[in-house]
Amino acid sequence: MRAVDIVRKKREGGELTAAEIDFMVEGIGGVVADYQWSALLMATLWRGMTAAETAALTNAMIRSGSVIDLDQIPGRKIDKHSTGGVGDKTSMILAPIVAAAGVPVPMVSGRGLGHTGGTLDKLESIPGFRVDLNLEEYAEVLAECGLVMIGQTAEIAPADKFLYALRDATATVESIPLISASIMSKKLAEGIDGLVLDVKFGNGAFMESVDDARTLAQAMCAIGRGLGKQVRALLTRMDQPLGRAVGNAVEIAECVECLRGEGPPDLMDLSIELAAEMVLMGGEVQSIDQARDRCQLVLDNGAALDRFRRLVIAQGGDPRAIDDLTLLPQPKGTIEVDSKRGGFVQSLAARPIGHATMLLGAGRARVDSRIDPSVGVILHKKVGDRVEVGEPLCTVLVNDSGDYPAALELIGNAYQIGPERVAPGVLILERI
Amino acid sequence: MRAVDIVRKKREGGELTAAEIDFMVEGIGGVVADYQWSALLMATLWRGMTAAETAALTNAMIRSGSVIDLDQIPGRKIDKHSTGGVGDKTSMILAPIVAAAGVPVPMVSGRGLGHTGGTLDKLESIPGFRVDLNLEEYAEVLAECGLVMIGQTAEIAPADKFLYALRDATATVESIPLISASIMSKKLAEGIDGLVLDVKFGNGAFMESVDDARTLAQAMCAIGRGLGKQVRALLTRMDQPLGRAVGNAVEIAECVECLRGEGPPDLMDLSIELAAEMVLMGGEVQSIDQARDRCQLVLDNGAALDRFRRLVIAQGGDPRAIDDLTLLPQPKGTIEVDSKRGGFVQSLAARPIGHATMLLGAGRARVDSRIDPSVGVILHKKVGDRVEVGEPLCTVLVNDSGDYPAALELIGNAYQIGPERVAPGVLILERI
Repeated sequence: MRAVDIVRKKREGGELTAAEIDFMVEGIGGVVADYQWSALLMATLWRGMTAAETAALTNAMIRSGSVIDLDQIPGRKIDKHSTGGVGDKTSMILAPIVAAAGVPVPMVSGRGLGHTGGTLDKLESIPGFRVDLNLEEYAEVLAECGLVMIGQTAEIAPADKFLYALRDATATVESIPLISASIMSKKLAEGIDGLVLDVKFGNGAFMESVDDARTLAQAMCAIGRGLGKQVRALLTRMDQPLGRAVGNAVEIAECVECLRGEGPPDLMDLSIELAAEMVLMGGEVQSIDQARDRCQLVLDNGAALDRFRRLVIAQGGDPRAIDDLTLLPQPKGTIEVDSKRGGFVQSLAARPIGHATMLLGAGRARVDSRIDPSVGVILHKKVGDRVEVGEPLCTVLVNDSGDYPAALELIGNAYQIGPERVAPGVLILERI
Repeated sequence: MRAVDIVRKKREGGELTAAEIDFMVEGIGGVVADYQWSALLMATLWRGMTAAETAALTNAMIRSGSVIDLDQIPGRKIDKHSTGGVGDKTSMILAPIVAAAGVPVPMVSGRGLGHTGGTLDKLESIPGFRVDLNLEEYAEVLAECGLVMIGQTAEIAPADKFLYALRDATATVESIPLISASIMSKKLAEGIDGLVLDVKFGNGAFMESVDDARTLAQAMCAIGRGLGKQVRALLTRMDQPLGRAVGNAVEIAECVECLRGEGPPDLMDLSIELAAEMVLMGGEVQSIDQARDRCQLVLDNGAALDRFRRLVIAQGGDPRAIDDLTLLPQPKGTIEVDSKRGGFVQSLAARPIGHATMLLGAGRARVDSRIDPSVGVILHKKVGDRVEVGEPLCTVLVNDSGDYPAALELIGNAYQIGPERVAPGVLILERI
């Protein structure tokens, strides 16, 4: 078998066999040159991949590392993955809810890049919180708390790590089979039994159109189910930021508010809905209604917040920051953005808000950028809200280093105010 | 400027600017990674290149090395390039003819690969002949003999050398813009004023269809003319091998026979026609008819053969091998392939004959294969010839090492014998 022949086959629109895909993945860093892989990636962007090829690629990437063994932990282990959006902080809310409802949640997350934030960056704004646990600590925290939240380790799908970096450098990111295989290889190597996918569409999402999001969701479900896992996908709207907080510490604060039952309705609704799907998948209840009730119960009785506090302690964080949110990193200043018009918020574009937050220092323009945990935006008005002239639309949290004039301009333009009252689109569009 | 953005632009079907192409070529071995170049090559195969992009790529590859300065040699310097075929040995015939007709021929050639032979391999079958002259020797031999024949040096278009190898390893060879730019960058760096192209079509050619060959010819003419050079292309048929000899020493012997005026008619006709175009381009005559007459004259009076003998001496070869062809490398044995049917040769497929010759040891399956100069095939019957049952179709020249059973099977199947007399197709189809 030769890499050049495999590249030619894909270039000509052929379907690669599992053996050919295995050869390419096993050859990484060895008999297959990086430049042969990048040619295959570009040919794949051009020609696509069948479901069988995508499954074979996922499988080969899983087998490039270890599959974490969580058999000693009782119960069905369920995780959630979101394709990312602005203000998307549901992981930190639903994981404690699901754990408190009796279903273990082993979660391997990513960092923010571009206009979207990352779970790991947000968690690290809690003083002392460590996301770089080794696999032994990972299993220990899961056994102790019923949940654990870490970053991708060297053992998990190293072939995906290599290909992800190569795709980034060769403009071959935007391929649904490659995206699906990348996500699913990481998730299926975590030792889980089931996975709930939050696949977002809209201007703040990776996939802007509903059709692309649906295709991606279907591809990921097919891979997971083909490998014997329960997988369910929700198509959810990402036109305006989720909740009111965008940043790092400010999003952690909002998560704690949600766990206290005091969060904004869109964020509460989506978190509970995703959590209920996970609890149902975990087999602790018989119906989605029962699952929702269970989730509401652990929110109301404080069990979910207690789980989160236990997680923070287990992963080295300072739990006082959960009880007193002013102990989270604070910005040096705040700037209020007031409305120049009266009327109703017609739209609040998520992508420029995400970009503005990155410019303030809360996100990464490049993989090696440093994060400022204290900066961000608090949205006082969202789509459908009434606003008077001069009333504050949002508060911008700033420090010395960020480019806040550029950020303020983006934020100002993100709001569209008009005379008619509009309703935000339905948040959860479909279940797959 | 970033390589990843340039790759993305091409992937999305955009037209690259000359500055972007310069950035990619100048970045070879530096800021542009090999895997970024191979992604761009695959995207180019997918999306194509405009004439302006192809010209910019050629120009950048020329400027990656030195352009040889032949100004001290009087007269217009003219070269020929063939896209390659089986038994294609016109270079060694026409270069001495053109030089004897008063037009200097500086020629940089390649080696054989796959089913086609290479000028350098054939020349090296002359005992002592050196093709690895440095640029000083190159100019000296040209001044002394009016012709010179060497291989690509490190100074000539090194970017092309890099990209050629990368294309070979990444299944991105078959792109007309990339092929055109590769050929033209090497040729235009030789210090020539004009170029005659022999672009072949048919089963033994790189481009099988006439349309593809015409597109390639037009692309190369556009590049050369855009850079201020005279370029003329002939579309010529490569359905059956050219001449009667296929191999290395055996082709040199046939070239000498042609220079003595005793060669087979198809090879003589094509060589004289290409030579006449070069002589006309050199400005030594006023019309193509006068050019043909001049070529015929230097053949008839022995001046062309004399030039070849001088070239052999100047490049270190033994001239006695030109006067006594039995001094060229000889095979250990010969095998006659006799016809099993009577009738007329309907077709004689060039590609299997080329492959068979490679299997005998005359060509390269891989770049690092060694060549056996003595083996090959002598075709006694060609398309349209009458043949009796048991009459020899060809003689196969063999040594110990080649796989001659496989070669014999290919050769036997290459001949189609039938009851009707057929005429070979016209050899020179178009001039561009």
